[in-house]
Amino acid sequence: MIRTHEAGALRRHDAGAEVVLAGWVARRRDHGGVVFLDLREASGVVQVVVREDDLAHDLRSEYCIKVTGAVRVRPEGNENPEIPTGEIEVVASEIEVLSEAAPLPFQLEGAGDVAEETRLRYRYLDIRRQEMAENLRIRSKATYIAHEIMNENGFVYVETPYMTRSTPEGARDFLVPVRLQPGNWYALPQSPQLFKQLLMVGGMERYYQLTRCFRDEDLRADRQPEFTQIDLEMSFVDEEDIFAIGEQLFSRLLREIRDVELPRPFRRMRFAEAMDRFGSDKPDLRFGQELVELTDFFSETPFRVFQAPYVGAVVMPGGATQTRRELDAWQEWAKSRGAKGLAYVLVQEDGTLGGPVAKNLSEQERSGLAERVGARPGDAVFFAAGQRAASQELLGAARLEIGRRCGLIDESRWEILWITDMPLFEEGEEPGTWTSVHHPFTAPAVEVEDTFQDDPGAANSRAFDLVLNGYELVSGSIRIHRAEMQQRVFDVIGLSKAEAETKFGFLLEAFKYGPPPHGGLAVGWDRLVMLLAGQNTIREVIAFPKTASGGDPLTGAPTQITPEQREEAGIDFVPEDEA
Amino acid sequence: MIRTHEAGALRRHDAGAEVVLAGWVARRRDHGGVVFLDLREASGVVQVVVREDDLAHDLRSEYCIKVTGAVRVRPEGNENPEIPTGEIEVVASEIEVLSEAAPLPFQLEGAGDVAEETRLRYRYLDIRRQEMAENLRIRSKATYIAHEIMNENGFVYVETPYMTRSTPEGARDFLVPVRLQPGNWYALPQSPQLFKQLLMVGGMERYYQLTRCFRDEDLRADRQPEFTQIDLEMSFVDEEDIFAIGEQLFSRLLREIRDVELPRPFRRMRFAEAMDRFGSDKPDLRFGQELVELTDFFSETPFRVFQAPYVGAVVMPGGATQTRRELDAWQEWAKSRGAKGLAYVLVQEDGTLGGPVAKNLSEQERSGLAERVGARPGDAVFFAAGQRAASQELLGAARLEIGRRCGLIDESRWEILWITDMPLFEEGEEPGTWTSVHHPFTAPAVEVEDTFQDDPGAANSRAFDLVLNGYELVSGSIRIHRAEMQQRVFDVIGLSKAEAETKFGFLLEAFKYGPPPHGGLAVGWDRLVMLLAGQNTIREVIAFPKTASGGDPLTGAPTQITPEQREEAGIDFVPEDEA
Repeated sequence: MIRTHEAGALRRHDAGAEVVLAGWVARRRDHGGVVFLDLREASGVVQVVVREDDLAHDLRSEYCIKVTGAVRVRPEGNENPEIPTGEIEVVASEIEVLSEAAPLPFQLEGAGDVAEETRLRYRYLDIRRQEMAENLRIRSKATYIAHEIMNENGFVYVETPYMTRSTPEGARDFLVPVRLQPGNWYALPQSPQLFKQLLMVGGMERYYQLTRCFRDEDLRADRQPEFTQIDLEMSFVDEEDIFAIGEQLFSRLLREIRDVELPRPFRRMRFAEAMDRFGSDKPDLRFGQELVELTDFFSETPFRVFQAPYVGAVVMPGGATQTRRELDAWQEWAKSRGAKGLAYVLVQEDGTLGGPVAKNLSEQERSGLAERVGARPGDAVFFAAGQRAASQELLGAARLEIGRRCGLIDESRWEILWITDMPLFEEGEEPGTWTSVHHPFTAPAVEVEDTFQDDPGAANSRAFDLVLNGYELVSGSIRIHRAEMQQRVFDVIGLSKAEAETKFGFLLEAFKYGPPPHGGLAVGWDRLVMLLAGQNTIREVIAFPKTASGGDPLTGAPTQITPEQREEAGIDFVPEDEA
Repeated sequence: MIRTHEAGALRRHDAGAEVVLAGWVARRRDHGGVVFLDLREASGVVQVVVREDDLAHDLRSEYCIKVTGAVRVRPEGNENPEIPTGEIEVVASEIEVLSEAAPLPFQLEGAGDVAEETRLRYRYLDIRRQEMAENLRIRSKATYIAHEIMNENGFVYVETPYMTRSTPEGARDFLVPVRLQPGNWYALPQSPQLFKQLLMVGGMERYYQLTRCFRDEDLRADRQPEFTQIDLEMSFVDEEDIFAIGEQLFSRLLREIRDVELPRPFRRMRFAEAMDRFGSDKPDLRFGQELVELTDFFSETPFRVFQAPYVGAVVMPGGATQTRRELDAWQEWAKSRGAKGLAYVLVQEDGTLGGPVAKNLSEQERSGLAERVGARPGDAVFFAAGQRAASQELLGAARLEIGRRCGLIDESRWEILWITDMPLFEEGEEPGTWTSVHHPFTAPAVEVEDTFQDDPGAANSRAFDLVLNGYELVSGSIRIHRAEMQQRVFDVIGLSKAEAETKFGFLLEAFKYGPPPHGGLAVGWDRLVMLLAGQNTIREVIAFPKTASGGDPLTGAPTQITPEQREEAGIDFVPEDEA
C-alpha cells in the first residue's frame, strides 16, 4: 500500500504517529502562510496542515496526492465535531502529487443540483461525492446481507444464461445476433423465470441468484433497460415458506442498514381490500385518507354521473381553500391519467357543500355526505364513478397526490405488507379474452384449481406481492407444476398448443418428468436499495445507469456499428434457401 | 413445507418418528409383496419400504412423491454403510404422487456416459444426478466464500453495465440493436475492465464483482460465449497487496472445499524462467521433466538443424521403447501444432543413441548428451530448435503430453504459483509492430517506465498471472494511471490519437481528473470451480452451458427472428441522411 493509515480512521489516540496518507484534495484554504487541505478517501476526510508554502502551492481540487506527516491534536478551539477525525490534524512534511486534476466540470460539493446528464457524463467525479459513494456502499452491504441470509437458509446460488431464447413476452426482448449461427439470434432474458423452474424440476430445491434482467421498454417511470433482481425459487413449499424467507430478508436489511425493526409477521392484505381501501395494489400505508365507497350512498342519486356501478371518494384535508386554478389543475391531472375529470365538492366552514357537483346532489345526499366520507369543514372531497377498478385506481392516485401535496406522508415510517389473493387473469381489450396478471405459470388459488376456466375473471391466483412504502418490491407466486393445469391456463389466455410449444415447449416437456410443487419470488433490487438509501430514483443507486433514451453519457453507448461488424456478426445473413 | 423432514438427514436416533418426506423415486426394487424405494432429494437418499402393494404399484423412476411413514432401524444385516441414512428406513403408510414421470430419455445412474448433447437437452434430469448437483453446490459454496473474503477485506460490490459500448477488442463483441435509438447498438462487455478503472478514478478504492463476460469467439478449447469472472480492483496498491488478496481467496477455497492447505506465500516465477524451464507461461508443476537448454551444448554442432538461436530438449522416460508408429505420431502431433517436426534420440540400454538424429551429431555430442539432459537408458529425448519462444512452447507442449502419456502427473497435488515479470508487448505479424500482451492499460515495469518505447520487445510489465495445476486462473496487473504514459503505450502499439479517442476516449478523459494508482485482477471462475469440483470441462460446472456452436439443446436458443422483430428492434434502420 502506498499509505500506512486510512485518513478517515485517525483519532486522538493516533497523535504523535508518523503517517503516510493517500487521497484527494477535497478542499483547500489558505491562511497566511499556512494551507489547510481536506484530504478525502474512502474511509473519510482528514485535515492536513501544510506550513511550507512550496509543498502545497500547486495543489488544486481533486488532485490525487500522497501526504507524509505527523498526526497531532488540533489546537484548542479548532476542533471540528462534525467529522470523526475532527479532533486531530496531520502536519505534512512531504506531499507527492500522484496525479493532477484538470479544472472540474462541476464542484463536487452541492453537485446534487447539477444536471443529471452532466453527473452521468462525469460519473467518476459524481461518485467521489459522499452521497453517491454511500449509495453504492449501501447497495454492496445490502447485497452481502442477502447472500448471508440465502446461505443460512440453504439456497444454492446458480447462474443462469444471459444469452438465451426469446421468452413469451418476446416483444420486449433485446436481441443478439449469433455469428456462429448466422441468421439466428439470442435474446437477453427478461427474467430467469423459466430457468429457475427448470432448476426445480432438476431437484435443486432452493435456488437463488442476484441476476441482471433485460427489458426493452420505453424508459418512462424510472426504469432501466437492464435491472437487477434477487431471484429465488423453492420446491415442496407453500406461500408461508416463501413469505418466511422474504420477511427474513427484508427485516434484516431494514435492521442492519436503517436500524428499523419491522414488526413480524408482516401485515397481509387481500388484493380486493387494497383496491377498496387504497385504490392500489401497492398501497402506501404511511398515511390514511382511505377511499370511501359511496355506491350505496348514491344508489338513488339524481346526479347522472354518480349513477354508476361504483362511486367512491377520497378526502383532501384543507382542500376547500384551493383556488379555482388549483381545482382546475386537478381536472387536467385526471385527464392526463385517462379519466374524464375529477368531480369534487368543497366542504364550507358552515358545513354546506360548494363546488359544481353539489347542486346536482339531492338534499339528503348533501347533508349526509361529509359525515359519510369523514370530511370536515375546509376539506375537499374528490369522487370517481364508473367501473370499479378504474375508478378505484383514479382515487388511489388522487390519494397519493393528496398525501404528497398535504405533507401527510410520514417519511420516517416503514410500512410493509404482503398483497395476497391476486386475480389470476385480467380481461383483454377484446371482451372475453384474458391475459395472465402475473405470468402464465402462476398457479390458480386452491379453491378454483379445477374450475378457474369457467369464470376466469373471478379466479384468484397464488400470486403475491410485497409492498414497501407504496413500492412493489417483490412479486412471487406458487407455480403450476401439472401439465394438465398449465394447458387449461393456456386455453384461457388463448395460447394454442402450437404457440405454447414454440414459446416454451422445453418447459412443458420438462414438466413430464416429475416436476415438484414449487414457487418463488423476485425482489426488485434497484428499487429496494433506492429506498434503503433514501433516494428518489434508482439511477442514484446504479453506478452507471442509462438515461431515458437508453444512452450512457459517459461511454457514449450505444453507437453505430461498421459495415464490417454487420457482416462479421451475420446480421444480414440470408439463408441459402431464401437467397 | 410439504414435508416434515429432510430424507437424507434421517439417522438412527430418528427411529420411531412419524415423518412426511417429499422427493423422487431414484430406484425401485420389488421383493415379493414388499417394494423398496430409494427416495432422493437435495439432502440425500433414504430407503422407503412399501408393504402394501397398491401404495406403490404405479410408481416409476423419477416420479415425484410424498411419503408419509415411520422411521425404523433396519433389520440386522440390512444396513447400508455406503449412505448416511443406511442404518434406518421409512415404512410408508401413505404415498401421494405429486407428479408422474414419462419414461426417461436416459437412466440417471451412469448418465456420465450419455452423449453430452443428450444430457444438455434434458439438463433438468442431468442435474438430478448426484455428481452434477454436487458440482452446482460446490460452485455456490465457492461463490459464497468469495463474497465472505471480499467483504472481510472491505471490497465494495458494484454492478457494472452489461449493455455498453464496443471495447477495444471490438471484433469479438456481441452486439445488441437499440430500438429506442434505431441504427445504434450496444455491445455486451468482454470484461468490466474500463468500468472498474472508472470506479477507481471515482474513489471507490476496493471494488469487486461476480460478473458475466461475453466474448464471441470460436468455441474450441472448452470456451463459452458467456463466462463468469470474479473481478476486483484496488487503489493505492502495488502487486503485493493484490497478491495477498488472491492468496487469501485461493487458500480459503482450497481449504474449505478440498481440504487442501496451500503453502503461503505462493511460489513466484518470472515469466522468462517459466518459459525456460517449462516452455509455458502456465506451467503445471505437478511433475518434473523440465526443459533443458542445449544452445551452448550444440554451439559447434555439425547438425544443421541445431545451428539455431535456441536448442532445447525434454526427456520422455521410457520413451526409447516406443514403436516406429508411435514415434511417427509425435511428428504428426508437432506438425498439428505448426512445427516442422520433433527431432528425437533414443537412449539405448547400452547408453548409445538411436534414432535418425543421432548420426548427425558429433561424437562428443553423442557421448555427452544423455548426461547433459538427464536421460537414462530407455528414455527418449525430444528436441526443438529455432526461435526461442516458439521452440520452448513446442517443448512445453511435448512435456505436458509426456506427463499425461507416462502418468507422471500426481493428480492429488495442487501446485499454484504466480507468474511475474511478464512482457509488456509482443511483436505483431509485421516485424516492428507491437501489440499489448495483457491489455493496453497494463503498466510497464518500474525500471522501464520512461524507456519502454525505445525497446518494446525487452520491456517487462507489471502484469501477472496465477496458475493452478497448469491452468491460468487469474490475470491481473498494475494499471497505467498517467495519461502521458498511456499515450506512449498507444504510440508503441500504433494506436493513433483519433483511434484511442474513439475507442476509449472516456477513460482517457477520466484520467485527467486525479486518477489514483491502481491495479487488480480477474479470476476465471468457471475454470476454477471446474478444478475445485475435479471436473475436466467447464460445462460440468455451468447449469445451462452452450455447445461448441453456441447453441442450447434445451431451449433451442438461438433462434430465427420474425420480420416484425427485425422491424421493431430497428435492426435495418437506415438513418435519414443515408436513405
